[in-house]
Amino acid sequence: MSEVLDVPQPERCSFCDYLAGVRPFSIVDRSAFTAILVTREQRGVGHVLVVPVAHRPTLLDLEPIEASAVMTTVIAAAAAIMSGFKPRGIAIWQNNGFPAKQTIPHVHFHIAGTLPDGGTEFGDVPELSVEQTDQIADVLRPFLHQR
Amino acid sequence: MSEVLDVPQPERCSFCDYLAGVRPFSIVDRSAFTAILVTREQRGVGHVLVVPVAHRPTLLDLEPIEASAVMTTVIAAAAAIMSGFKPRGIAIWQNNGFPAKQTIPHVHFHIAGTLPDGGTEFGDVPELSVEQTDQIADVLRPFLHQR
Repeated sequence: MSEVLDVPQPERCSFCDYLAGVRPFSIVDRSAFTAILVTREQRGVGHVLVVPVAHRPTLLDLEPIEASAVMTTVIAAAAAIMSGFKPRGIAIWQNNGFPAKQTIPHVHFHIAGTLPDGGTEFGDVPELSVEQTDQIADVLRPFLHQR
Repeated sequence: MSEVLDVPQPERCSFCDYLAGVRPFSIVDRSAFTAILVTREQRGVGHVLVVPVAHRPTLLDLEPIEASAVMTTVIAAAAAIMSGFKPRGIAIWQNNGFPAKQTIPHVHFHIAGTLPDGGTEFGDVPELSVEQTDQIADVLRPFLHQR
């Protein structure tokens, strides 16, 4: 399906590079089908990305077993954010295609606790170091696999 | 989990009323676990809501089989929007708790094709009549159950 969407097509996929360990990135957890990464552009509290391990450009490219695993992982990530950071709300979003602001052509769900004043930040945010996102991963990791 | 989120608690749940037929609303499709509704506040092209049939306040309250069914239905809805309206992008979002702008305490995923100029509308939008949303449902329905 995704061939009819206007999807970015860089030479290399950043998420595949992160998952392969070719480039450093904070990985909270990974399983056979999915992984939880900490984005360096934090738009909320404990903002993570859930991705399929296999390269799939958009949501429409997921195999059924991957789709189910992605949802299970999204919920587990949301629960870990609740336990680790205790926000009052959780925002989830997922973009397919340039017009929806997808920038990396590997499907990813954003999961973020809401900011103290509510909502999440849609403007510019500073880019954290991997050392800083590793600290966020360390907060979340103990709360996975508890459900 | 959702008891620690700041979730709206009206006397009646609008989505449960719509699904029970107590109040009119456009229902594109329903199965044992999920339904696809057409929102009267269209923020993109073919903007629909995927909900569990059972009343669940937030994503954290879904049973595993419901979570899997919701994701399957979200993908089916996105594919139907692609086929029926041919947008260049698909935006998906799901809010939990007042601070994330959840207004109805029954988990719902928004799925919308991007507007001709890209993105979706986050400001005020007109409220369509059920006759108008029924026309959107009629466009989408033939494209479900094709995958």
